[in-house]
Amino acid sequence: MKNKPQLTVVKIGGNVIDDATALDSFLKDFAAIKGAKILVHGGGKLATRTAESLGIKAVFHEGRRITDAPMLEIAVMTYAGWINKNIVAKLQALGENAMGFTGADGNLIRAKKRENTTIDFGLVGDVISVNTELLNALLIQDIAPVFCAVTHDGNGQLLNTNADTIASPLAVACTGYYDVKLLYCFEKKGVLLDINDEESVIKSLTFERYSELREQGAIHSGMLPKLENCFDALSKGVTQIGIGSPAMITGETHTLITL
Amino acid sequence: MKNKPQLTVVKIGGNVIDDATALDSFLKDFAAIKGAKILVHGGGKLATRTAESLGIKAVFHEGRRITDAPMLEIAVMTYAGWINKNIVAKLQALGENAMGFTGADGNLIRAKKRENTTIDFGLVGDVISVNTELLNALLIQDIAPVFCAVTHDGNGQLLNTNADTIASPLAVACTGYYDVKLLYCFEKKGVLLDINDEESVIKSLTFERYSELREQGAIHSGMLPKLENCFDALSKGVTQIGIGSPAMITGETHTLITL
Repeated sequence: MKNKPQLTVVKIGGNVIDDATALDSFLKDFAAIKGAKILVHGGGKLATRTAESLGIKAVFHEGRRITDAPMLEIAVMTYAGWINKNIVAKLQALGENAMGFTGADGNLIRAKKRENTTIDFGLVGDVISVNTELLNALLIQDIAPVFCAVTHDGNGQLLNTNADTIASPLAVACTGYYDVKLLYCFEKKGVLLDINDEESVIKSLTFERYSELREQGAIHSGMLPKLENCFDALSKGVTQIGIGSPAMITGETHTLITL
Repeated sequence: MKNKPQLTVVKIGGNVIDDATALDSFLKDFAAIKGAKILVHGGGKLATRTAESLGIKAVFHEGRRITDAPMLEIAVMTYAGWINKNIVAKLQALGENAMGFTGADGNLIRAKKRENTTIDFGLVGDVISVNTELLNALLIQDIAPVFCAVTHDGNGQLLNTNADTIASPLAVACTGYYDVKLLYCFEKKGVLLDINDEESVIKSLTFERYSELREQGAIHSGMLPKLENCFDALSKGVTQIGIGSPAMITGETHTLITL
C-alpha cells in the first residue's frame, strides 16, 4: 500500500467556475499539486444563463436539474464545450498536460439513464462503470484528465450526470494503482457543527464520530448524502477525503474524512 | 515504408454534420475503416443558428467566419461541445473507441493567432505544431481521435481553426509511424473538370496533371488552395489524398491525388 503513487481527485462546483478570478487562482493551485491528478467540474450558471437567452426554461426539483433534450444540448455545449475547454487551455498555459473529457470519450465513464421514480429527471445518468485501464494509461502518460458532468449510456445517448457522483467512482476506480485522495471543494470551509457559524468546521471526521454526530442530529441534513457517499468511497479503498473551500488544496482548514 | 500500419484521416464538413441521417450513415462507414483512424469535423450551421438565437450576428469575409469573443464562445460550445461529443457517443455505440479533442487537449494542436492583415479574422489560429508523440500513443491504444475545429495558443487562449487546415498537419504528423491516407469529404463527388457537371470528376490527379490543368484554367479557382494544400501534404509524406463525397470512404467515385 505504502508504495503506490499519489493521485489527487478534485471536484469543483459552480461557485469556482462562475468567478473567473477564483477559477484562475484555483487552477494555479491545482497545477501545483504533486503527483497524478484528476479534475471534475460542475456546470455553474452558464447553462442556466444560456438556456434563458435561448428562451428555454431551466427546471429544478429539490435543487436537481431536470434535463429534457434541449436542456441536455445546452448542458453539453456549456459543460463539455466552453467550460471544459477553457479549463483545459488554462491548465495547458500553466504547464499541466490537461485533457478534457465527457464520459463518452474513450468510454471513460458509462452511465445508465435514471429510471423514473416519482420524478422524471429526464436525460440524467447514474455512473455504472469507469474505464480504469484507459484512465490509468492516461495518468501514466502525465495527462491530467478534466471531466465535466456529462456521461453516456454506450448506445449513443449523452447523459447529464452530477459532478459529485462522477468524482467518487473515478477515485474508487484508481485505488488499484494509486493512493487516492479525493477533495470536494464547495462554498463552505468544511462540514460545520453549526450551520450558522462558518468557523465551526469539523476538522476530522471518522465514521465513528460521524455516526455519533448524525445520531445527535448535529449534521445538517443536506450534508448527509454527501457524507454517506464519502464513507462509501473510503470503504472501497480511497485513502482520505477532504471537504472544504478550494483553498483546501493548499492546506487551508477543511474537514478531513477517514474511516 | 511498406511495413508501416495504415492510418486514415477523414475530414467531414457541415453538409454531413447538418444532416442527421447522412451523419449516422457516415459514422457507420467511418467505424468500418480498417486500421488506425482520425476524424476531423467542421462546424455546420449549429454555431450560426445558436448565435442567431442568442442575438449575435455571424460575420463572414469571403466565406470565412470572423471570430470575435462571443462568437468564439459559441464556436467552442457547438463544435467542441454538442457536435463533437455527439459524434463521440455515436462512435462509441458503434464499438469505436472514440475520444473527442480540441487542440488544447493534451496540447495536441498548437496554433498561432493569425496576424492582422487587411482583414482581422479575430480569434482565429493557424496550426504551428502537433503533439505527435501523444497522438501516436493514443492511436496505439486503439483510440480514434475526433478533432473539432478549435485549437489553442498555449497561453490559455482557444482559437477557431479551419478544419481543413487541421486535417492536413495531423496527417503529416503521423507519417513517421503510419502509411497515411487523407480523405476530404465535401458536397461534391470530387474535383470537377466542369463545375456545372457533377459527373465530370477527375478520378486521378498527379502533380503533373494538376499543373497542366491549372495552366489551362480548367480547375475552379475555389479548389486551387485546397489542392495546393494537398500537394504540400503529399510532399511531406502523406501517401494519398482523396477528395469527394462522404461515400468515398467506401470506395465510391472520387478524386485520388498522388504526387
